[in-house]
Amino acid sequence: MRCRKCSAKAIIRLPRHNTAFCPPCFSEYVTDQVQRAIKGDRMFGHAEGVAVAVSGGKDSLVLWEILSRLGYRTLGLHIDLGIGEYSRISQRKVEVFASARNLPFVVHSLRENHGAGITEIAEGVHRPPCSACGVIKRYNMNVIALQHGMPVLATGHNLDDEASRLLGNVLHWQDDYLDKQSPVLPNSHPKLVRKVKPLYRLAEREIAAWAVLQKIDYIVDECPNSVGSKMFVYKDALNRLEDAAPGTKHQFYFQFLDRQKARAQVSPIEPDLRECVSCGQPSTAEICSYCKLVGTLQREAEPALKVLK
Amino acid sequence: MRCRKCSAKAIIRLPRHNTAFCPPCFSEYVTDQVQRAIKGDRMFGHAEGVAVAVSGGKDSLVLWEILSRLGYRTLGLHIDLGIGEYSRISQRKVEVFASARNLPFVVHSLRENHGAGITEIAEGVHRPPCSACGVIKRYNMNVIALQHGMPVLATGHNLDDEASRLLGNVLHWQDDYLDKQSPVLPNSHPKLVRKVKPLYRLAEREIAAWAVLQKIDYIVDECPNSVGSKMFVYKDALNRLEDAAPGTKHQFYFQFLDRQKARAQVSPIEPDLRECVSCGQPSTAEICSYCKLVGTLQREAEPALKVLK
Repeated sequence: MRCRKCSAKAIIRLPRHNTAFCPPCFSEYVTDQVQRAIKGDRMFGHAEGVAVAVSGGKDSLVLWEILSRLGYRTLGLHIDLGIGEYSRISQRKVEVFASARNLPFVVHSLRENHGAGITEIAEGVHRPPCSACGVIKRYNMNVIALQHGMPVLATGHNLDDEASRLLGNVLHWQDDYLDKQSPVLPNSHPKLVRKVKPLYRLAEREIAAWAVLQKIDYIVDECPNSVGSKMFVYKDALNRLEDAAPGTKHQFYFQFLDRQKARAQVSPIEPDLRECVSCGQPSTAEICSYCKLVGTLQREAEPALKVLK
Repeated sequence: MRCRKCSAKAIIRLPRHNTAFCPPCFSEYVTDQVQRAIKGDRMFGHAEGVAVAVSGGKDSLVLWEILSRLGYRTLGLHIDLGIGEYSRISQRKVEVFASARNLPFVVHSLRENHGAGITEIAEGVHRPPCSACGVIKRYNMNVIALQHGMPVLATGHNLDDEASRLLGNVLHWQDDYLDKQSPVLPNSHPKLVRKVKPLYRLAEREIAAWAVLQKIDYIVDECPNSVGSKMFVYKDALNRLEDAAPGTKHQFYFQFLDRQKARAQVSPIEPDLRECVSCGQPSTAEICSYCKLVGTLQREAEPALKVLK
């Protein structure tokens, strides 16, 4: 197998693009796709600071690496979820990565802020862990990024993440979620960051291959709370469809984006935001999801959590 | 496992409805679902004749059986595709079924009408077999049904067929096909039958179980030309999603139908039909798909087919 660009020995085949690359040309392809996302979708410019949500997994560390190499001013944001060994290893990967490159980062610890890890918090508020985790992460990432003067928050979501999320939304015809699924969510309120997904043009296996080639040391394990997650079922279904017809994921997600763009030109979607009466952060409800969650936690679970401490 | 209706020993579990049935209650459930489709979607009444497209497979024979039992006046339409042993067995199943019940049926043979079976015809017109077969079946079923005074054509498409077709249309965002995907297609022209799918509320395994319980003898083999069909890939993906979350197929298809109904009330979709200049049948183009196919066949493939005869 030869590289389609320079004819050197190829190390990766990309069936959906009907091509194959040697290591240098593959690396160029990966960086090009990220640049194309940033510039083509007007995600951010070099004058803006970009907060990068880093879990310690391959996607977020690859994203941070590429943004740094491209000369963007970045700040790593890591949420310590307090899930025992998994969280300790995750944070260690982030610390080693950042110190080797002299990159700044902030850690927000759930145990320090709520006296408990995400598993106990989710139990305390009677919600599935991934649901509670999503609310807490979204809220804190936004607040911390803005506190550090970063108007943009970049996450490591890749093509597989976006296509499987789209499949889940389509299987349940969730119009609200479909409307909001985009690689760029503009900041619809001064207290909100712009949210961007610069890896959305790259498949999961492309990112994993690049991480290995660049010797990026990341946590391979998935979050223990994600076992049995619907997302894995959707990814598995899409992988089977992709094997049968390479390009299925790409076509499914990119054609969806084209339709969204066409629709947005006809009737742009403006969320109806006000400020949470409890914390002042933007919300569509009187009390934001985060304050509701923390309220339930304090009301119902505090005694139990204090025992846990 | 007990029947949820009468507490007798259950023989089938229906996870998507969170229930289980004994043979008589299951049979009642199956018939009820078909009646609900016919009446709820205003498919046809007892005064109208219904042509039933019968391949000899489980779905079409189950459909024919239920419509006869419910007292509808039916006419079986079988297309002999001329695929060797497969077609001979299929037709034999239809003949045995019909004569045991004294039901009328018509056979349209491709070899008699075109001098060749569907495999050679598809090769002759350089099209995939399923594509050529679809054009030929749709055209002839419509013409033959109306020739016999039947204003309605019922096909055996089940929930799995419709959900997997929907998945294929959504993966490629085929708006034209999405708009037309419905269990009832009204006749938008006097020369067109109304097309209905009375089994759309029943899953494939429910129909197969009912066929076995009623001792309906059907051809189990799939059409040899359908090997590697995308439909099987979509069905497999949906079966995996269904295993992980029972009810996924049902919800996916039924919520889609609810959306279609809501949209149709806002802007009803009227096809722009004229009559084919060659055969006079309704078509969106100057020459209909069938006449184009037959034209190519006569022009390009006739000499070869004559040799085959």
